[in-house]
Amino acid sequence: MKGVILSINPQTTIIDLSHRIPSHAVEDGAYVWRSCYRYFPDGTVHVAIVDPGVGSERRPLVAKSSRYFFFAPDNGLLTHVFDQEAEVEVRQVENKQYRLDSEGHTFDGRDVFAPAAAWLTKNQSFSSYGRVVGDPYRFKIAQPHWEQSALVGEVVYVDAFGNLITNLFLSHVKEVREFTKRPNPLIRIANHSIDGLVGSYTEGDRTAPHALINSDGQLEIFCKESSASVLLQVSRHEAVKLS
Amino acid sequence: MKGVILSINPQTTIIDLSHRIPSHAVEDGAYVWRSCYRYFPDGTVHVAIVDPGVGSERRPLVAKSSRYFFFAPDNGLLTHVFDQEAEVEVRQVENKQYRLDSEGHTFDGRDVFAPAAAWLTKNQSFSSYGRVVGDPYRFKIAQPHWEQSALVGEVVYVDAFGNLITNLFLSHVKEVREFTKRPNPLIRIANHSIDGLVGSYTEGDRTAPHALINSDGQLEIFCKESSASVLLQVSRHEAVKLS
Amino acid sequence: MKGVILSINPQTTIIDLSHRIPSHAVEDGAYVWRSCYRYFPDGTVHVAIVDPGVGSERRPLVAKSSRYFFFAPDNGLLTHVFDQEAEVEVRQVENKQYRLDSEGHTFDGRDVFAPAAAWLTKNQSFSSYGRVVGDPYRFKIAQPHWEQSALVGEVVYVDAFGNLITNLFLSHVKEVREFTKRPNPLIRIANHSIDGLVGSYTEGDRTAPHALINSDGQLEIFCKESSASVLLQVSRHEAVKLS
Repeated sequence: MKGVILSINPQTTIIDLSHRIPSHAVEDGAYVWRSCYRYFPDGTVHVAIVDPGVGSERRPLVAKSSRYFFFAPDNGLLTHVFDQEAEVEVRQVENKQYRLDSEGHTFDGRDVFAPAAAWLTKNQSFSSYGRVVGDPYRFKIAQPHWEQSALVGEVVYVDAFGNLITNLFLSHVKEVREFTKRPNPLIRIANHSIDGLVGSYTEGDRTAPHALINSDGQLEIFCKESSASVLLQVSRHEAVKLS
Repeated sequence: MKGVILSINPQTTIIDLSHRIPSHAVEDGAYVWRSCYRYFPDGTVHVAIVDPGVGSERRPLVAKSSRYFFFAPDNGLLTHVFDQEAEVEVRQVENKQYRLDSEGHTFDGRDVFAPAAAWLTKNQSFSSYGRVVGDPYRFKIAQPHWEQSALVGEVVYVDAFGNLITNLFLSHVKEVREFTKRPNPLIRIANHSIDGLVGSYTEGDRTAPHALINSDGQLEIFCKESSASVLLQVSRHEAVKLS
Repeated sequence: MKGVILSINPQTTIIDLSHRIPSHAVEDGAYVWRSCYRYFPDGTVHVAIVDPGVGSERRPLVAKSSRYFFFAPDNGLLTHVFDQEAEVEVRQVENKQYRLDSEGHTFDGRDVFAPAAAWLTKNQSFSSYGRVVGDPYRFKIAQPHWEQSALVGEVVYVDAFGNLITNLFLSHVKEVREFTKRPNPLIRIANHSIDGLVGSYTEGDRTAPHALINSDGQLEIFCKESSASVLLQVSRHEAVKLS
C-alpha cells in the first residue's frame, strides 16, 4: 500500500496506527481508530481496513468531516467516527480513475484504498469519488444504563496489556457519586468487587484488580503488572456495575 | 539501520516492507519482496536482508534495473528480481567508503547495507560500489507442468492468514479450461478437492477450503476466517493440481 | 503519540526504534536504546518509554548531551545514556505549556512525552522545560571482574533470536589472552564450555553453542539457527567466564 501511495504522491507522510487488530475484529479496529484519530493534524487522510468486508460486496467508503477524511470498507469501522464527528458526508469509492487494475479482488487495500487516499492528498475533489451513501453500516454502541441502584456499563476494549477499558466515563462516576452520596464507587465485574479508584497503574497490590480513570477519561480495570483479561477471565461485552 | 541512513541523507523517506519474515526463510523474503517492490516510485532503493548469508562469506550485492536499485546478500533473495526485471546489472558492495567500521560482523544491515543504500540516494555512481558479479545465487523457481491430464503447480507462499498462494496464474486456469472444455477447474490439494473458483474471501461456507484468483493474479486457496495451512496441514511446496 | 507530534510539527521525521520491549523491562529498553541512539543525526530528539514509571510518581525527564536530546521517565531508562555521553544535563518535564490536558494519567506518552518532544523540535529552549534534576535514577551497570584466573562477565541482553549478549568486549578478550598466553579464550556459561571464537553466525555446527564478537564489539553466545537462550536455559544476568 505504501508503495502505491508514494508513487502517486511522494510527499506523503505515512503513519501506521496499528497492525495488531485481529482479522475480523471490526469493533476493535473501530475502537482503536476512535481513540487516536483526533490527535492528527487537520486535513489528515485516515485509512482503516479490517476484514471481513474487503473484496466482498461491502462498498468501499470515504467520509468527510470538518477536519478529516476517512477511508474504510462499509463494515462498521466508521461507527465511532459517525458518533463523534459532526456533519459527516459519506461517498462510495467507485471512480475507476482512483483505482489500480488487478485481476483479482483480494487486496483492496493496495488496489482501491491506497490509490484513492493518495489522490485525495493531491487535491482531487471529494465529490468525484462516487455517489453519496445515506445508509453506511454502523454497529450498535453500547450505552451505560441504570439497573436498580447500579449504573451498568460494559468492557468495550481489551488492550495489549490485558487492561479492560469500559464505556463508563468520569461523568458516569460522578453521576453514581451523586446518587450514592459516597466519594468512592463500588465497581463490580465477574464476581470481583473493586472499592474505589486509584490514580495510576503503579498503585495498589498485585493480588487484586484495580480501577482508574485512564487518559481518555474512561474507567479502566487492570491488574498490576499482569493481564486483567486473563486473570478475571473476562473479555469484551462483560458487564461492569458502578454503585 | 534507520539512524545510519538518516545520518547520511536526512531527506530519505524510509518505508518498512516487512519485519515478519522468519530468520533463514530466504524464499519467503524473496516472495514478499517480489509481490511489492514494483509498486514503489521509480528510483527507489530497495534493501532486503534475511539470514543466513549476512556476515558470512556471502557477498553483499547491489543490483540495478531500469527502474530500481536492490541491495541484498548473495543468498537468493534477488531471485525473483532477476526473473522479473529486464537487464539487471549486479555488483558486489565492497567500497569501504560506503561502510561503517565495526569490530564484529554480525550486523551488516547497519554497517554495510544501510550506509551503502543511503549513499546511493546521494547520487554516488553505481559502478563505484565494486566489481561486477556474473553469477549471483538464484534458487530454482518452481514452474507448473502437465502430468497426464492435470496441470501441477505448488504452494509458493503461506501468508500471515494461513492462505496458500500458488504458482498457478489466471493464464494457467485458462489453459486448463481450454483443455477440459469445462468453465470451472477442479483443484486438488492434499486429499481435498475444490470445485471451481469463488470471487472473494467472504464467499462459500466455513466447512471446506475454497480457491480464488488473488489481486496478484495467482490462484490462492483459503479457508473462510481460518488458516488453510493449519486446517489442510499444508505448507510451501505442497502440490496443487488443476484439471 | 505520532498524531500529537505531527500536529505540533508536521515536518518531523518519526522513526520507531522498537515496539518489542516487554512491559516493565526497563533494563532491556535501556540496552536497546544504548545500542542504537548514536547512529542518529546530531540534534535528534529521542523518546523512550517503558513501564513502570509512566503515570506514577516517577518524574518525566529530558536530558541534553552534546549531540542529542533524550526524553524518558525517571525509572532508569537513561542509565546507559548517562554512562556513555559526556556532560549530560537533566531537567524535569513540568512546563504545562508542553502538555496535553487529559482527565487521567495512564497515557503519558501521548499527553506528556510526545508534545514535549515535538515542541523541542520547534526550538523551544531546553531550560524552559522545568527544574534541573541532580539525582536521576540509574540502575547499576554490571562490570566484568576477575575471579581467580577467570574474567567473569554476564549476559546483559537476550535478543529476538535468543542470542546472549554479554558485557565482555573485545578488550576483555585481549586482556584474557595476555593473561593466559593462549590465542583462544575458553568461554564457560551454565555448564557449557565454548572453545574460542568464530567469525559469523554461519560458522560451526548446530549441536553446540558458539561465541563471536558482534558488531557492537561485544562477546555474544549463539546457537546456529536456534535460540541459545532456550537451549542453554539461560537469561539476563547469567555469569559468563573467560579464561
